[in-house]
Amino acid sequence: MIPDPAIVATVRSGKPLVHHITNYVTVNDCANACICCGGSPVMADAAEEMEAMASIASALVLNIGTLNARTLESMEIAGRSANRADVPVLLDPVGVGATGFRTESVKRILDRVEVAVVKGNHGEIGVLSGTGGDVRGVDSGGAEDPAAASETLSSELGCVVAATGEKDYVSSGGRTVELSNGHPLLERVSGTGCMLSSVVGAYIGACGPSVDTVGTAITVFNLSAECAAERSAGPGTFKPALMDALGSFEPGRLCSARVRELRLRAS
Amino acid sequence: MIPDPAIVATVRSGKPLVHHITNYVTVNDCANACICCGGSPVMADAAEEMEAMASIASALVLNIGTLNARTLESMEIAGRSANRADVPVLLDPVGVGATGFRTESVKRILDRVEVAVVKGNHGEIGVLSGTGGDVRGVDSGGAEDPAAASETLSSELGCVVAATGEKDYVSSGGRTVELSNGHPLLERVSGTGCMLSSVVGAYIGACGPSVDTVGTAITVFNLSAECAAERSAGPGTFKPALMDALGSFEPGRLCSARVRELRLRAS
Amino acid sequence: MIPDPAIVATVRSGKPLVHHITNYVTVNDCANACICCGGSPVMADAAEEMEAMASIASALVLNIGTLNARTLESMEIAGRSANRADVPVLLDPVGVGATGFRTESVKRILDRVEVAVVKGNHGEIGVLSGTGGDVRGVDSGGAEDPAAASETLSSELGCVVAATGEKDYVSSGGRTVELSNGHPLLERVSGTGCMLSSVVGAYIGACGPSVDTVGTAITVFNLSAECAAERSAGPGTFKPALMDALGSFEPGRLCSARVRELRLRAS
Repeated sequence: MIPDPAIVATVRSGKPLVHHITNYVTVNDCANACICCGGSPVMADAAEEMEAMASIASALVLNIGTLNARTLESMEIAGRSANRADVPVLLDPVGVGATGFRTESVKRILDRVEVAVVKGNHGEIGVLSGTGGDVRGVDSGGAEDPAAASETLSSELGCVVAATGEKDYVSSGGRTVELSNGHPLLERVSGTGCMLSSVVGAYIGACGPSVDTVGTAITVFNLSAECAAERSAGPGTFKPALMDALGSFEPGRLCSARVRELRLRAS
Repeated sequence: MIPDPAIVATVRSGKPLVHHITNYVTVNDCANACICCGGSPVMADAAEEMEAMASIASALVLNIGTLNARTLESMEIAGRSANRADVPVLLDPVGVGATGFRTESVKRILDRVEVAVVKGNHGEIGVLSGTGGDVRGVDSGGAEDPAAASETLSSELGCVVAATGEKDYVSSGGRTVELSNGHPLLERVSGTGCMLSSVVGAYIGACGPSVDTVGTAITVFNLSAECAAERSAGPGTFKPALMDALGSFEPGRLCSARVRELRLRAS
Repeated sequence: MIPDPAIVATVRSGKPLVHHITNYVTVNDCANACICCGGSPVMADAAEEMEAMASIASALVLNIGTLNARTLESMEIAGRSANRADVPVLLDPVGVGATGFRTESVKRILDRVEVAVVKGNHGEIGVLSGTGGDVRGVDSGGAEDPAAASETLSSELGCVVAATGEKDYVSSGGRTVELSNGHPLLERVSGTGCMLSSVVGAYIGACGPSVDTVGTAITVFNLSAECAAERSAGPGTFKPALMDALGSFEPGRLCSARVRELRLRAS
């Protein structure tokens, strides 16, 4: 069920430890968003401690926003350690398609690490699925059909795939849902996609990776954004208001969720 | 003309992609300031993707705030790639003069990359121009004559030079303007100089490097700061208010600009 | 005396330059907290400039939040340079005990650098003192007796030790004080411990390392948090309000300080 109030409650009571290897642009907002929804974030990227840190975490978030050769190696070590310890791994392929380095790095991670959730914007998921997507720097230039792209990529990788944008799509095992909450201010603040990845990381850390868990996380984030928009005067005041809204999220608001199950295939 | 409303409009409609190699202290604020004024920021510093990323950008911003040997090399690769693709390069020589490493790194960049705009505080431009300037950590200790320093450095490098402080000076081709907007709270928040560099980056990405473009960018930023100061209770609430003000900047406010053309030389 | 209004005034008038080698998660908030309390922060971690930067600083803050092999070496170079120049060094052993890499790195720093202040959360100080402490990622899982842990570690290292949590303990030379100000929102924002380290850095830079200086810094920070909590609607708006409160701290508020001298030993 999306959204599922029991999932929201489990994340809050579980305080899942979310190990992040992420970019230095939005990392502070990721940490705060993770705390606000109930998680305990730890950011660490030294190769020397990857095995230890990933294995004690509840989830591992890999975000390639400012990847370099050193942190790519750390992602591989942490990812394999997480796999051995049955810790779910989320990959946010920020800017994949914008440069060959990003595209090849994502391929390398997907080859060597079993990823439980891939979460990107429409353009990134379009690029990764091979169904057509446009990425400009780290911004989405859109995808031909983000719902189909999610389902195609999910089927290829055998994991949950989320494609976020004006509408969000979450797909796994032939099931695809469309989520229609959110607010245009999310597009005017740097790193809201990264923050959402950290929130999803906390959710899968507490409740395991599934369409319901990922869809509930996205819905909570987007409903918080709607709430925050009412209390802000622009993108600057929207960000602290978004944290407040995430931190004091009322499960009663879940009745405003806009969720639609799609039937993309005969299956 | 400074300020030029047509420049403001062109930046907003153009959504210039601004590739940053910048410090990890103020990078999030830089990204948000860039978005708020109309740009699309991408932060990337891996040597492997510098050529690709810089060549597709509208402008390249090099900020040495937390430079190290690895990112210095990335700046050179990106700078030369930008030069080949006719992408204007802005250099913010943060803390130049404070350590030999910073001074030598700036020289190396200026030797190997054609820079379109150098933007620093009074102390940094004073140091670089050789006319006398004081830098304490990354704070300006002032310059003897920042207007003359800007003109001297501009003449030496053959590019636009901006020296910011209580009054700002922009110089190129023997023309120097003095800009007198802004607010003391700008000095009480970390990274407002870096944010301004990112705003100028978006402006030159959309409209090309010139005294008018750079002067208009500085004026928009400073008028936004004046507006934000009215809605804030201190340095903490000033920063989100500054983003709001940049994001909703009304061209009508440009009539509050305080701009003076200086006559420093016979030329 | 804790709190000492003269210490507060000296920090504000002295504008101590605080060199940080710190993590990229909370660095921006550290810089702003340092400015708000009267300091001038500079963040720099390139080995090439460590000797120069540390020697001109008023204090050096080493925070291992996102340590790696490169920045560990920079910390050693900067630490030894600071020692030679009689610049006090503060160590924040973020997450010590969570991984072997963190524990060994802290030992290496303590072996090679004379540290004037160690400031950690209850769990970290418990781990370091060997009296028992729990660290989960970078969050404190608590210590058996944080007051005793502070005194034990202080005695072993011959420096000031601060253990922060719901109550804070500062110990040196057999004297231990308990500080009871603060607000629960401090635990719901990422990096408030790091921010406090930067504030303490400014204080010891201006007034030297002592129980009085460190205790006054902590008290000012915690009283500012109490003030900020009244003006915020959650963790998001609390952070800018905390900066505002630090920046406009009224010495008259010091009368709300809750300080208790403990008698832990016969000495």
